[in-house]
Amino acid sequence: MNPQPLLQLDRVIHEKGRLGIMSALAASPRMSFRELRELLEMTDGNLTAHVRTLHEAGYIAVIKEVDAGRPITSYSLTQTGRTAFSGYLKLLAQVIHEASQSMT
Amino acid sequence: MNPQPLLQLDRVIHEKGRLGIMSALAASPRMSFRELRELLEMTDGNLTAHVRTLHEAGYIAVIKEVDAGRPITSYSLTQTGRTAFSGYLKLLAQVIHEASQSMT
Repeated sequence: MNPQPLLQLDRVIHEKGRLGIMSALAASPRMSFRELRELLEMTDGNLTAHVRTLHEAGYIAVIKEVDAGRPITSYSLTQTGRTAFSGYLKLLAQVIHEASQSMT
Repeated sequence: MNPQPLLQLDRVIHEKGRLGIMSALAASPRMSFRELRELLEMTDGNLTAHVRTLHEAGYIAVIKEVDAGRPITSYSLTQTGRTAFSGYLKLLAQVIHEASQSMT
């Protein structure tokens, strides 16, 4: 087993909740807090913590606006986040490929 | 984005350190504590915690023996662990496939 692809996996992205957020934002250019929370079946507290971590890593942008007097927070992938996610997916594909071969 | 494959990912396996242990034991029928620690560049404390979690889930067997008066602890995948890892890899492949399509 070559451990290198696995050892290089970005922990910021790999955590299951954050992997969900990154995947959702890769598929949709912009999602609100509520949309993400419902899609990924997360609690407010979990989602808040994970978007903070992704924002601090520079992977997602936070968009705050007011719609009909109501504040709405949305998120989108940054270019840095897109690049990091793309690299993560390539490494993870290598991990899966090697592990799947071991399992046959 | 269909969140189902992602939501179903087994957290016991998904954590990066444990994914490394499961991948290593899928590739080798049996590995010692020292071999795993060196391959995966983990600390004693981290490796101890992760093998305990995997053992408690029924995914790995712990083999204790004495070689030339020295105790050696080794690990191997159980059938339950092999089945769980195989299911995990299939789900993860779906997650990657969908996310990779979003990124193009």
